[in-house]
Amino acid sequence: MGNFKWDLDLAKKLAAEFTGTAMLMTLGCSIAQFSKSYSEVSLGWGFSYAAAIHTFAFLSGAHINPWVSVSATIVGVMEWELMLCYIACQLLGAFAGFGLAYVALPENSKHFCTTMAGVNFDEWKIILVEFMLCGFLLFAYCAIWDKRSKAAYDSYSLRIGFIIAALCFAGHYHGGCSVNFFRSLAPAVVQLKFDGLWAYFVGQLVAAIIVPVLWRFVIADEKPEPME
Amino acid sequence: MGNFKWDLDLAKKLAAEFTGTAMLMTLGCSIAQFSKSYSEVSLGWGFSYAAAIHTFAFLSGAHINPWVSVSATIVGVMEWELMLCYIACQLLGAFAGFGLAYVALPENSKHFCTTMAGVNFDEWKIILVEFMLCGFLLFAYCAIWDKRSKAAYDSYSLRIGFIIAALCFAGHYHGGCSVNFFRSLAPAVVQLKFDGLWAYFVGQLVAAIIVPVLWRFVIADEKPEPME
Amino acid sequence: MGNFKWDLDLAKKLAAEFTGTAMLMTLGCSIAQFSKSYSEVSLGWGFSYAAAIHTFAFLSGAHINPWVSVSATIVGVMEWELMLCYIACQLLGAFAGFGLAYVALPENSKHFCTTMAGVNFDEWKIILVEFMLCGFLLFAYCAIWDKRSKAAYDSYSLRIGFIIAALCFAGHYHGGCSVNFFRSLAPAVVQLKFDGLWAYFVGQLVAAIIVPVLWRFVIADEKPEPME
Amino acid sequence: MGNFKWDLDLAKKLAAEFTGTAMLMTLGCSIAQFSKSYSEVSLGWGFSYAAAIHTFAFLSGAHINPWVSVSATIVGVMEWELMLCYIACQLLGAFAGFGLAYVALPENSKHFCTTMAGVNFDEWKIILVEFMLCGFLLFAYCAIWDKRSKAAYDSYSLRIGFIIAALCFAGHYHGGCSVNFFRSLAPAVVQLKFDGLWAYFVGQLVAAIIVPVLWRFVIADEKPEPME
Repeated sequence: MGNFKWDLDLAKKLAAEFTGTAMLMTLGCSIAQFSKSYSEVSLGWGFSYAAAIHTFAFLSGAHINPWVSVSATIVGVMEWELMLCYIACQLLGAFAGFGLAYVALPENSKHFCTTMAGVNFDEWKIILVEFMLCGFLLFAYCAIWDKRSKAAYDSYSLRIGFIIAALCFAGHYHGGCSVNFFRSLAPAVVQLKFDGLWAYFVGQLVAAIIVPVLWRFVIADEKPEPME
Repeated sequence: MGNFKWDLDLAKKLAAEFTGTAMLMTLGCSIAQFSKSYSEVSLGWGFSYAAAIHTFAFLSGAHINPWVSVSATIVGVMEWELMLCYIACQLLGAFAGFGLAYVALPENSKHFCTTMAGVNFDEWKIILVEFMLCGFLLFAYCAIWDKRSKAAYDSYSLRIGFIIAALCFAGHYHGGCSVNFFRSLAPAVVQLKFDGLWAYFVGQLVAAIIVPVLWRFVIADEKPEPME
Repeated sequence: MGNFKWDLDLAKKLAAEFTGTAMLMTLGCSIAQFSKSYSEVSLGWGFSYAAAIHTFAFLSGAHINPWVSVSATIVGVMEWELMLCYIACQLLGAFAGFGLAYVALPENSKHFCTTMAGVNFDEWKIILVEFMLCGFLLFAYCAIWDKRSKAAYDSYSLRIGFIIAALCFAGHYHGGCSVNFFRSLAPAVVQLKFDGLWAYFVGQLVAAIIVPVLWRFVIADEKPEPME
Repeated sequence: MGNFKWDLDLAKKLAAEFTGTAMLMTLGCSIAQFSKSYSEVSLGWGFSYAAAIHTFAFLSGAHINPWVSVSATIVGVMEWELMLCYIACQLLGAFAGFGLAYVALPENSKHFCTTMAGVNFDEWKIILVEFMLCGFLLFAYCAIWDKRSKAAYDSYSLRIGFIIAALCFAGHYHGGCSVNFFRSLAPAVVQLKFDGLWAYFVGQLVAAIIVPVLWRFVIADEKPEPME
């Protein structure tokens, strides 16, 4: 610990998190608005993650999701001061990206890009489903951070993209596949549609605590060090 | 031989096989339940394999399929004691993952995630088709284990994912593309739907004997050693 | 600077840009003409970029898009004389490839492969949308040129392909997802359909100035050198 | 030259070409038969190529297409005796794989897996289209064989798979996207449907001569050597 300091390198990382999250939201929300099927939406979110991660991974790791930064901190590859800075930039980026998509749309709907429960709405199911989906995603990130994975980074952005697609294929009917709280928060706040938002938060939060704790104390085999 | 021992490293491998198989079943069965077309189901299973393999391959190899472990043992890159442990964990993981998807579903159907023959049901065709599809998959795994493939692991999870997608595209109308006996067993046992299950087992078993024997005695060119 | 000279190596690079752009246009326009859904068109353009970039990236970098060459020059990894040569070859290649697709078609339509605004046509929206989409694409290229990305080139063509797919999924309803001026220019000139073409140009031009300037003066951390 | 000899290594290469081509035909024809849309067929052929290439590339290069072997010989990375052996095995493999799919099908159609011209049948267009598509594919292979591509093999099977998908998306309406003469020959011979088959042959043959000649004498920059 103790690597954290305010310098130009930090500023570049934060710019990358802000821009990456904005890029994700602009692309993902534009795709979600105009797609005609759930499989288009799922692939679209996956490719949007792949685009943002491809572009910014070498600068900041391209977390672009607060739970990824929380998990990185619990696993021990990120310092908590840096986590807080990342999360703040992700929050701003999510609003900026959503705003850009909102302005660029030819016509606005009332539920633009919100994640909400389907017809058989049940908040406990959303908690369970988001716990599972977000947990699977965080396991995938823990694997990338583990030194034993030998830095297989070349196709990393594509792999995360297709994992997101799998999670969204699986989560369609269960409330829309958020796995990223700011991705749900920005559309909810701007359009004042908060139904069930707390359930997404709770399910994801539990996953973002349990998965990295399991990884750090059961699966990891060396003392973690903050990544450069 | 002789590397097998009960230690912490083994426990981590077995945890990876259990969790990976559970992740596969939860994602795959959720996708299968709600998809509207065979191509969605095929891509969904492919991406689910990619997700589980991406996450756990560096820990345990992410076999997540008993026939893969059987083939690895016949080819000579796995010890039989380890194979038995892997298979036990895969079995438990398949039931755990299927159970999670079963509980999380908004409504249950009677044939949730089963693989069964289509309208023109014919068990001999299922045996033939599963032999072919499972055999192709095991060839793909044998190639990965062969030292001449020079450990091209970076995009390995994606490649297996798209191969699974190809097998499922091809196997749609022939009984649903199992290629993994536990993937068919868990839904069959929980819902007491055993029609044709033996045919999947027989076709896959024959493939899991013939393919690695062919590879080891015809194609391989060095004495195999258990992988670390 | 000062590496630019007229030699055989330059001729090979220019041949690669010409052929790559022609390949892109022939494949992309054939796919666009016969596809039944926007998602087919989006994946089709993405795979067409991947094909051309896979084939020619190691010769010329496979820019196959004038804005990519402009950005490379502003970022500092390309000399301006080379940029002008690349752009001239891309222009010729776009017309050649479009012409080949035009001749090979079983029946010609009046709007073959044009990018035009949809029903709620609004040129300011096209400017904004093309600025965003082209800007995201150019960020992705800047990341590849940055030395900190450590030359992760193996899956580079696929990554750009899926990023293009994401951009086209997002841009469907906003005028068709050009992001490459010559891709819009060739069909417009041959068929004398210039409606809104200036708006594509303006949006893309602004992106091709702002993104590389931001990258060079904010994100890059070393003095750029022309790539070999 | 002069490396060719009859030995065990050759036998393994030929077994790989035979099995790879059979795997391609079985998967591809099964998918083509049951798919409901052209995009499924295109992706299915792409993934089938990826599966066969992933499995056998490190043994024989996984040409699984006679034109690829012809081009390799013209470019200078393959000896002509080896080419003849490869082509013979590909021919046998195509019939074996087609036969397996033909037997496994629940119901047979009269045009199972044939590539034939569409409604506006015109053999000159097939020649032109197959020349283009096959030529693009052979350019992609020439790039892989060129030493300047620095052996980026990790995602090679996926890249060829998505290139095939692009070619098939583009070739749908023009006669079905053969690009591999044996892929068209086996279904034609077994079902005695030869309409237009010569046109596929002619278009592909011209591509398989022009593209590698161009590459060898214009683009390549070193004396070619047969690959090990």
